[in-house]
Amino acid sequence: MSKHRVVVVGGGFGGLQTVHGLKGADADITLIDRRNHHLFQPLLYQVATTVLATSEIAWPIRRLFRDRRDVTTVLDEVLGIDKGAKTVKLASGRMVPYDTLVLATGARHAYFGRDEWESVAPGLKTLEDATTLRRRILLAFERAEMAEKTSELDSELTFAIIGAGPTGVEMAGMIAELANKVLPKEFRKIDTTRTRVMLIEAGPRVLPAFTEDLSAYTKTALEKLGVEVHTGKPVIAITEEGVTVGDAFIPCKTVIWAAGVQASPAARWIGASADRAGRAVVGPDLSVPEQPEIFVIGDTALVSQDDGKPVPGIAPAAKQQGEYVSKVIKTRLAGKPVPAAFHYRHQGSLATIGKRAAVIDFGKFKLTGGLAWWIWGLAHIYFLIGTRSRAAVAWSWLWIYLSGQHSARLITQKETLKDES
Amino acid sequence: MSKHRVVVVGGGFGGLQTVHGLKGADADITLIDRRNHHLFQPLLYQVATTVLATSEIAWPIRRLFRDRRDVTTVLDEVLGIDKGAKTVKLASGRMVPYDTLVLATGARHAYFGRDEWESVAPGLKTLEDATTLRRRILLAFERAEMAEKTSELDSELTFAIIGAGPTGVEMAGMIAELANKVLPKEFRKIDTTRTRVMLIEAGPRVLPAFTEDLSAYTKTALEKLGVEVHTGKPVIAITEEGVTVGDAFIPCKTVIWAAGVQASPAARWIGASADRAGRAVVGPDLSVPEQPEIFVIGDTALVSQDDGKPVPGIAPAAKQQGEYVSKVIKTRLAGKPVPAAFHYRHQGSLATIGKRAAVIDFGKFKLTGGLAWWIWGLAHIYFLIGTRSRAAVAWSWLWIYLSGQHSARLITQKETLKDES
Repeated sequence: MSKHRVVVVGGGFGGLQTVHGLKGADADITLIDRRNHHLFQPLLYQVATTVLATSEIAWPIRRLFRDRRDVTTVLDEVLGIDKGAKTVKLASGRMVPYDTLVLATGARHAYFGRDEWESVAPGLKTLEDATTLRRRILLAFERAEMAEKTSELDSELTFAIIGAGPTGVEMAGMIAELANKVLPKEFRKIDTTRTRVMLIEAGPRVLPAFTEDLSAYTKTALEKLGVEVHTGKPVIAITEEGVTVGDAFIPCKTVIWAAGVQASPAARWIGASADRAGRAVVGPDLSVPEQPEIFVIGDTALVSQDDGKPVPGIAPAAKQQGEYVSKVIKTRLAGKPVPAAFHYRHQGSLATIGKRAAVIDFGKFKLTGGLAWWIWGLAHIYFLIGTRSRAAVAWSWLWIYLSGQHSARLITQKETLKDES
Repeated sequence: MSKHRVVVVGGGFGGLQTVHGLKGADADITLIDRRNHHLFQPLLYQVATTVLATSEIAWPIRRLFRDRRDVTTVLDEVLGIDKGAKTVKLASGRMVPYDTLVLATGARHAYFGRDEWESVAPGLKTLEDATTLRRRILLAFERAEMAEKTSELDSELTFAIIGAGPTGVEMAGMIAELANKVLPKEFRKIDTTRTRVMLIEAGPRVLPAFTEDLSAYTKTALEKLGVEVHTGKPVIAITEEGVTVGDAFIPCKTVIWAAGVQASPAARWIGASADRAGRAVVGPDLSVPEQPEIFVIGDTALVSQDDGKPVPGIAPAAKQQGEYVSKVIKTRLAGKPVPAAFHYRHQGSLATIGKRAAVIDFGKFKLTGGLAWWIWGLAHIYFLIGTRSRAAVAWSWLWIYLSGQHSARLITQKETLKDES
């Protein structure tokens, strides 16, 4: 008899953890992703802000499972799922059969119905997003250096970050560091310390998932770095000329979107009910109601905590879900009783502010400032996969810390300034 | 009175050396490049073959001259030169005036009038070229893993490198290492050690600029790595289906061009006479005949050695020319007698074969094998600009040497397999 076939779609934190957890399960595992690499998304903002190189936060998925003969890695894109035939349809035209299916396809940034904003206000989810933002940020300073009118200069040196969750806070802090610490001596005509970095949040405070005192600390720390924090005002319009916040128009050439996410189309593929953000509703064992052989996990699943709130879309949650689902599959295969319902353990919330401060909320205790930054750094290095990257990132950070320099300041993909219209 | 204005076009080895040499010259220096980074081209093949990350071999030009207040860096593309008005016309529309002009604009790969080959057989001159080749090489293995027909499989696992100069030899050796050492355990359906790597050279031997015994050693060393060396046969045709060498058609999906270069249009900008490869003919002091205020150096200049042969288009030659031209400019500015004619000192030729061997020709003595590889590696680390990159490259190489792994194995820029048509 052939082995039980588990197909995992998505090589993010949830998908990888599922495959890791299935080690020894005597199953035939296929891991499908449209990219050849796993991306350590929590550090993506550091690529966008020239601190880390792309290959420091991404690893070939094949390499991660080279010693797992039970795992086949497939580089392809899922177009749909045939629940009747139990097959996954791929862009290459192939159909991959499954006995158990795990969908861990993540989320993408969303523009709340204003899709026309995407081209002027790119978000940050893939390596290409990060190199695109890096190029845009660096080119803004280059164009400012060439500007002939004051109005042009001002709008080139104004950066607006929409959304003050961890990514928005991190981007704002790092752009301010870049402008105030890294670049000043390199330009001859402009004073990069005159750069305006605006963090714009529709809600009442920055880092809404954190406690109010940590939000307040973060706002003050950002302001010390030179970031203007604007809360309580929604963005009304974004164009190539600037952003309209409330009833004020701010001329601004670089806008970065960190405001919302939309789940992958996984719910649609399987005809499952979904919430407004597209997340598939799953049962207590993370399988889809009436489709016990299909699991949905991570950012593309709507899972409730004990208090009724949804589990947050962060890496540790996806990993816990992947770990749990691998256990459910293993116990089912062994014919044993299924484990108790999935229970999310919140380990803490972390966010960095520039290169010297961070906020950490472990629930029982909270931490801010320099020590929090070091804990954040060590935690991220620890969770990076692969010894080499761990050392490479540690080395990059140590270098930046000691020298005040950023090394990955490359404008790539486009040949010349004029291509960037 | 305003200072003497020196405009240097090109931030490669020649241009940077000119600017370095002009330190203290009491001139107003403008360095123009269409890219924001200096590229350490001799190691570009290592990015293309997944060994090094892009930011390990490229540095922002601005950063290199941040402490030189006499140097202004301009990111822009040169469209032409008005010799009468003594201005450089830029793509942004600006005109930059000069008193002395140094053109160090390098070369691009050339297809000997077969420009239609460029899309199927990309060359290796820019960072984007390197990431494009990296993507193509990695995707060939991915498509092979999915191939359903043997013929498809064979043509995906065949790589043809056209031209057996140092770049061709280095690419062939590294692709063979990738296929035979790095990838085998990661694929489930294909045996990557069955990969055919063909190095195709129209001339009679590999590394024609080296002595015959070093060529013979290199051929044997490549064959030991599994590379098929084909010499004495020109490439007749290249299509998406394969290459025609002599009268044999070889089905092959990945073709890499390492066969020829064409100088930048610098000679055309200034109406100077040029050779077939577009290199501007310069006088003994590297200035253009009858235009003493314009110098042309590096790969875009045709400079004769004592024996009448042209100075080779390699980094040390460009650096020597940049150093020389900076001296000529300095002595002219000081009103002193102009130095003697430029004299090229050939310091040696180096090429690596895979990850364990190299050939070195220092003229007086020659070296092959493992020791040559270490000397090559140390020499390249030594010549890398910037302490951090030196350490980062040393670290990457040491890691690869000890672990047998490559870490920069990223397929980027294109979203999915199907985009790669």
